[in-house]
Amino acid sequence: MSTRDIHQQTRDHLWLHFTNHARLSAGGEVPVITRAEGAHFWDASGRRYLDALSGLFAVNVGHGRPELAEAAARQIRELDFAPIWGQTHPRAAELAEALADRAPGDLNRVFFTNSGSESVETAWKLAKQYFRAVGQPGRHKVISRTLAYHGTTQGALSITALPPLRAPFEPLVPSGAKVPTTDRYRAPAHLRDDEEAFGRWAADRIAEAIEFEGPETVAAVFLEPVQNSGAAIPPPRGYFERVREIADRYGVLLVADEVITSFGRIGDAFAINRYGVVPDIITGGKGLTSGYVPAGVAIASDRLFEPFTRPEHTFVHGSTFAGHPVAAAVALENLAIFDREKLNENVRANEDRFRATLAQLKDLPLVGDVRGAGYFWGVVLVKDQATRETFTADERRRLLHELLGPALRAAGLHVRLDERGDPAILLAPPTTVGPAEFTLIEQVLRAALTETWRRF
Amino acid sequence: MSTRDIHQQTRDHLWLHFTNHARLSAGGEVPVITRAEGAHFWDASGRRYLDALSGLFAVNVGHGRPELAEAAARQIRELDFAPIWGQTHPRAAELAEALADRAPGDLNRVFFTNSGSESVETAWKLAKQYFRAVGQPGRHKVISRTLAYHGTTQGALSITALPPLRAPFEPLVPSGAKVPTTDRYRAPAHLRDDEEAFGRWAADRIAEAIEFEGPETVAAVFLEPVQNSGAAIPPPRGYFERVREIADRYGVLLVADEVITSFGRIGDAFAINRYGVVPDIITGGKGLTSGYVPAGVAIASDRLFEPFTRPEHTFVHGSTFAGHPVAAAVALENLAIFDREKLNENVRANEDRFRATLAQLKDLPLVGDVRGAGYFWGVVLVKDQATRETFTADERRRLLHELLGPALRAAGLHVRLDERGDPAILLAPPTTVGPAEFTLIEQVLRAALTETWRRF
Repeated sequence: MSTRDIHQQTRDHLWLHFTNHARLSAGGEVPVITRAEGAHFWDASGRRYLDALSGLFAVNVGHGRPELAEAAARQIRELDFAPIWGQTHPRAAELAEALADRAPGDLNRVFFTNSGSESVETAWKLAKQYFRAVGQPGRHKVISRTLAYHGTTQGALSITALPPLRAPFEPLVPSGAKVPTTDRYRAPAHLRDDEEAFGRWAADRIAEAIEFEGPETVAAVFLEPVQNSGAAIPPPRGYFERVREIADRYGVLLVADEVITSFGRIGDAFAINRYGVVPDIITGGKGLTSGYVPAGVAIASDRLFEPFTRPEHTFVHGSTFAGHPVAAAVALENLAIFDREKLNENVRANEDRFRATLAQLKDLPLVGDVRGAGYFWGVVLVKDQATRETFTADERRRLLHELLGPALRAAGLHVRLDERGDPAILLAPPTTVGPAEFTLIEQVLRAALTETWRRF
Repeated sequence: MSTRDIHQQTRDHLWLHFTNHARLSAGGEVPVITRAEGAHFWDASGRRYLDALSGLFAVNVGHGRPELAEAAARQIRELDFAPIWGQTHPRAAELAEALADRAPGDLNRVFFTNSGSESVETAWKLAKQYFRAVGQPGRHKVISRTLAYHGTTQGALSITALPPLRAPFEPLVPSGAKVPTTDRYRAPAHLRDDEEAFGRWAADRIAEAIEFEGPETVAAVFLEPVQNSGAAIPPPRGYFERVREIADRYGVLLVADEVITSFGRIGDAFAINRYGVVPDIITGGKGLTSGYVPAGVAIASDRLFEPFTRPEHTFVHGSTFAGHPVAAAVALENLAIFDREKLNENVRANEDRFRATLAQLKDLPLVGDVRGAGYFWGVVLVKDQATRETFTADERRRLLHELLGPALRAAGLHVRLDERGDPAILLAPPTTVGPAEFTLIEQVLRAALTETWRRF
């Protein structure tokens, strides 16, 4: 198969995701990714890229692992597929236990899915049916935070707080309220310098939203431990403790949406373990298999499972492929790699250095903020460092798509250029990298940003 | 890992799908599936089962194919994962072309997903955004048929016409109307003996629903070529042609939900190819990879893609794992197996014999109807053949769960006992089987049904 054929097949038959097709339909081309190994992938022209995005926040142990290829092939030869509808199989049972072992508190009950979107759907559906089962049938709404991306199936989309992603598909699921996120760089001026006060303010907006909706109608609050969209927004000190208190006060479930932050991204199997609270449900995806096979998961507390141990309640939810033997075998081997190679320890040992290396970029005039945690960082770009003024829509397009994007591609660095909130560079490399890659990333970003600013 | 451990892990940590956990939580056990090959799988006790359900309508080329294990492992070593967001890779492009080649008419545009639910979500979201793009923003509703299962994410669930699956999760997406399905066995008495008149009546109920909702608010009608839930309900002669006319008359899209019926199940890559009409979108899943790796697809017509070739319209939808290199590599090899082994031809050559073999069961007093197509059949059970009287809820439980289910398991035959409509036995074996397996299936069913009836 020649590269020319791949371009033609793509142009004629593939519908790319979140992609405008005008240029491609007019005869243009998109990158053709052909090979990957370790922290790198290659395109059809032979150019090598440092994959500082782990595919799409997924390939957390790095690319091309022969032990994961062998795990998949071995499982196919042993048991290619069996559903977990009224029956079980060894890999699903083993993986459920392994995940429960790593999850905080009494989060012991594992519901498998095929994607992050399906994990979020599962968590919301579980919250709805749980409250009906315990005699609070009015509780069905969800509180979520501005800019947060929770998925694209129509339930998950309803609580995704990015209006342009929802607008073409309204009406969606009646879903409750959106609250501010914890972007301290954009916080009200009087709160910027006091992290804990800002955290209290942000958490209290959740309490306010619950009051406004009516507590007896609210089922859950969905939060990412470190919020992806908006550029790797970490929680202020004390924020999660206060959110947990608020959730308890109003009888609302706390869902940690960890589709991005779990399986090493923040240096733990689950990021929430590092923020000192126990949620009621954790959702996962991407890194569960390091992205080698589609899979997702929702992990619920014993308390939420309890009504469903009785004959009168069945969680009437499921999915054909969920708990897939091949996905589960790959996930188990993926967890074993984390243990063998101490990858969470590597992230925790290196995260301050990663932060410090990236923070050097703040001497560039267009770098407004560097924030994140673990191996997940956002570099926020502004037109004026002093006033924090951002770019117009036209400027943003020129900045990201005409200047910075091509410069980074030419330099062989793969990142995400995010424009859902402030324009930003998102970094999420495999958990296997270290200081050498941090330095390289900083150098490439510095050169590309400098040149971009010069030409802007 | 001992079987005892697997039971304990399952009991303590796994949330089985569509399963009441009371018995398990009280110390009970569920079957442990450990191995599979060809048309069979084995449980932990060593018992062999004929898999007359292809896992769950998925393993269409049969279990344990070494060429699919090798395709998965080879792809992981070459390119384990790359998303198709603004870029492409060889396997996704090749598979898109291969699917467009097999799809009817101008259905040339392939949007990949991770599951059947996500495929249905995609088709509905596409219909919504398409109509906004062409200046008909009021069109968002969907017409679907009673008993039809279209998935469990909250969009797909909204058009799933099984109220018990929706009730715990309301409110869902405002979604339009439900119409009767084409179950001729339960048709109004005056229509039972005239297939074409019944088909016209059933199709015209769709037109009526569109009128009742207001055509300018209806986006699409979703139909399975052979409807799964309700027990393998085929379309009456002339039905799809008339539905196509009605859809065209009202400017409504026709979506063929082929998550179950595609990739050999009805003897063609897409069942709709056998019913002589061209839909606007086809949804697929399960059999695309023969279930070896989770994957799904929505295939749209050139007409639906056209507005999205312009700069002003982007289909703002996507999924991390969709178009997954490993899933695509397995799907391509799966299609190659179909071609090499002429499996669609095998289904078409044998379907009348399968039907005739199963129809012998009609001499048993509790067999009311045998219907289906290809390698997808439903055996409907009734209390009285002459009056078509069905069972009470208590009788149904005793019939299926206490008598028939254990008898079939003991005999090593895996089927689905469906109770969403009339109690029924659903059969969907791998496309590799033939007359010897039909005879075995008939013999086992005959013995189990005879014994069940004797003890009932």
